[in-house]
Amino acid sequence: MSEVRQKATIAKDASSRLGNLTTGQKNTALLRMAEALVAEQDSIIAANAEDLKRGADTGLSTSLLDRLALTPERIESMAEGLRQIIELPDPIGDQLESFARPNGLRVEKIRVPLGVIGIIYEARPNVTVDAAGLCLKTGNAVVLRGGSSALRSNERIVEVLQAALAGTDVPPGALQLISDPDRASVDEMLKLNGLLDVLIPRGGASLIQNVVKNATVPVIETGAGICHTFVDESAKPEMAEKIAINAKVQRPSVCNSMETLLVHRSHAEQHLSVLAGKLSALGVELYGCPQSRELAPQIKTAADEAWDTEYNDYVLNVKVVDSLEEALAHIRRHGTMHSECIVTENEAHASRFLQEVDAAAVYHNASTRFTDGFEFGFGAEIGISTQKLHARGPMGLPALTSTKYRIYGDGQIRE
Amino acid sequence: MSEVRQKATIAKDASSRLGNLTTGQKNTALLRMAEALVAEQDSIIAANAEDLKRGADTGLSTSLLDRLALTPERIESMAEGLRQIIELPDPIGDQLESFARPNGLRVEKIRVPLGVIGIIYEARPNVTVDAAGLCLKTGNAVVLRGGSSALRSNERIVEVLQAALAGTDVPPGALQLISDPDRASVDEMLKLNGLLDVLIPRGGASLIQNVVKNATVPVIETGAGICHTFVDESAKPEMAEKIAINAKVQRPSVCNSMETLLVHRSHAEQHLSVLAGKLSALGVELYGCPQSRELAPQIKTAADEAWDTEYNDYVLNVKVVDSLEEALAHIRRHGTMHSECIVTENEAHASRFLQEVDAAAVYHNASTRFTDGFEFGFGAEIGISTQKLHARGPMGLPALTSTKYRIYGDGQIRE
Repeated sequence: MSEVRQKATIAKDASSRLGNLTTGQKNTALLRMAEALVAEQDSIIAANAEDLKRGADTGLSTSLLDRLALTPERIESMAEGLRQIIELPDPIGDQLESFARPNGLRVEKIRVPLGVIGIIYEARPNVTVDAAGLCLKTGNAVVLRGGSSALRSNERIVEVLQAALAGTDVPPGALQLISDPDRASVDEMLKLNGLLDVLIPRGGASLIQNVVKNATVPVIETGAGICHTFVDESAKPEMAEKIAINAKVQRPSVCNSMETLLVHRSHAEQHLSVLAGKLSALGVELYGCPQSRELAPQIKTAADEAWDTEYNDYVLNVKVVDSLEEALAHIRRHGTMHSECIVTENEAHASRFLQEVDAAAVYHNASTRFTDGFEFGFGAEIGISTQKLHARGPMGLPALTSTKYRIYGDGQIRE
Repeated sequence: MSEVRQKATIAKDASSRLGNLTTGQKNTALLRMAEALVAEQDSIIAANAEDLKRGADTGLSTSLLDRLALTPERIESMAEGLRQIIELPDPIGDQLESFARPNGLRVEKIRVPLGVIGIIYEARPNVTVDAAGLCLKTGNAVVLRGGSSALRSNERIVEVLQAALAGTDVPPGALQLISDPDRASVDEMLKLNGLLDVLIPRGGASLIQNVVKNATVPVIETGAGICHTFVDESAKPEMAEKIAINAKVQRPSVCNSMETLLVHRSHAEQHLSVLAGKLSALGVELYGCPQSRELAPQIKTAADEAWDTEYNDYVLNVKVVDSLEEALAHIRRHGTMHSECIVTENEAHASRFLQEVDAAAVYHNASTRFTDGFEFGFGAEIGISTQKLHARGPMGLPALTSTKYRIYGDGQIRE
């Protein structure tokens, strides 16, 4: 039996017990996990040093090496993440519906764990701890497959966490890490129907697309965001400027940052020049339509494919539009249904934009950067779903649950 | 451009308008559709006759021909189904959550349509009308791909329904039927990400498995059910008998009927002989474990694969177990997480069974045949989801919806 199948089988066995644990039992385990991370930080940092050395030898970029690196502060932060999960309400067992039928049957719909969750991710070892904690709190077993560049770090972290579980009511089988660095182990996970209930890919576009295209196990897609900010005719110039700059430069590398600025012609004629100057001064490269280039010399010609590009960088497209309708049409064509914003003082326009734009999160007069589980007050985030099934937008703990119907009778049969 | 891509593109264009229709506009369209079906019944029955003739010529079984056949009564029943959908509450626009953040942002979570739903099904023309009505009520466009044996019937039905929409506010593009009978048109639908938001297969196991295994578009899996009834030591004999007989013979061809009866040894020793006799007299073939065969001469030896077989017929497996634990273990191994029942007077056993069995619907002292949208009072049923993502168990209108967050600010940016 392959490592993937073997570990997924262990996880599945564990999951049938996990769903019956009390909140207290799960929280105790989370606390032990947090304590163990801190207590074992030296051995984790030593394992991480091996990954860092191999990474440097094989030419990983500085930014990737930085994401991979663990320090006492980062380990404390991972432990603190687990402690925060303890504080979150446990959704498992919540009664979502309850009704009686005319024949006397009583039906309850309650939250249950999904079962076994497969998480496929890249180089950041903090995902290992984060995913382990979120899955445990929701009574799910988890099979982790991290990037091979973080393998030693992840192995040591999972050893530490499993050892911490050994003294608790949580079966240690609930947490599994795939050590096989071969790509075939990912391919095997994608088709492990019957053992894995859900796959959640976390990482760049190519990782996510590989999972979406090849998985037969149901997937929660996260990730890609070509987000727009539309500055309407009536927008307050200072507010528009503040929101546009924030949406672009506060953290350009993430999915909820802005990739395209749409500006109503009359607003653009008065204000685009200043805004383009400020963005440019902040290091943003600008590409735009001919009209925008007439108004702001910093803007270079946008290629056709620009409008469909997720830069995740200090780069921005700018387009002048003649109307709300043109902005809506552009977003319909080029948006990825992630986060979209209108800056306007016209309530009718705001209302129409929020109604008609088909996206996980639609904003009136606020930065798209708020699409985030913590910013929404969920206290945790599994990712931002960009699909429409099951969960959409920032996912908190309920996104890691399913439901079941319990039906109570006294001998009812169907006529 | 292929027919599939062309029609899916039309549906997608229509879907952006559909989500903004009022309940009244949608209900008017549903009423016109119902009226048109009845008014055009002769032409529908004429088209159906062509399908029936071709079916008879190509040797379709009598039961398939019966499923395919349309009569004035069946068309009236399809129209009545549409009228019932009018009466159901419209979930679109429902506010599911509303909260304010410390920075003043106001966040609302509201129900929105999924977008474009692809439905792949077999020979029953009533699915065409049913799916069209359910999708319209929830503001979704639909691309239908029915079985080729019903093609002429479906074409005529869709022509009639589209003509009925022409006089309403619903864009006729919202309803699309794929006429290409080639299997390649199904394959193309399975990978139409970006145009189709969800696929729902309705039909037999091989149709569903083809969709689950090959689709890159998210799927709601429906269907297979290997359902168990466990008769515990303390079960009332008359209740156990009534429930077991109902679960098996009331309608054996459907997914929520019982395939395996588990009987506690002490109950079996006293009552299995009588129950097996009654089931046998009702035409049920019985296959069982050695212990069951010692108690009831009607029971033949069960092959190993029997426990994993969905008969959907007058056939039943019988197994004698020594304990609740053994029943739970058998269900964990052989169940398909559809519907499972315990018949017992022991509340602790009932409670443990309902807690531990991982299935869409778990019953205490009632027939598994109740797993059904109409029986649950949903007033409609899109199918019974056997997956854990998005929807589980009987699916009413909310299963055809997604959500979106609307965020209202006054210039907030992320720090």
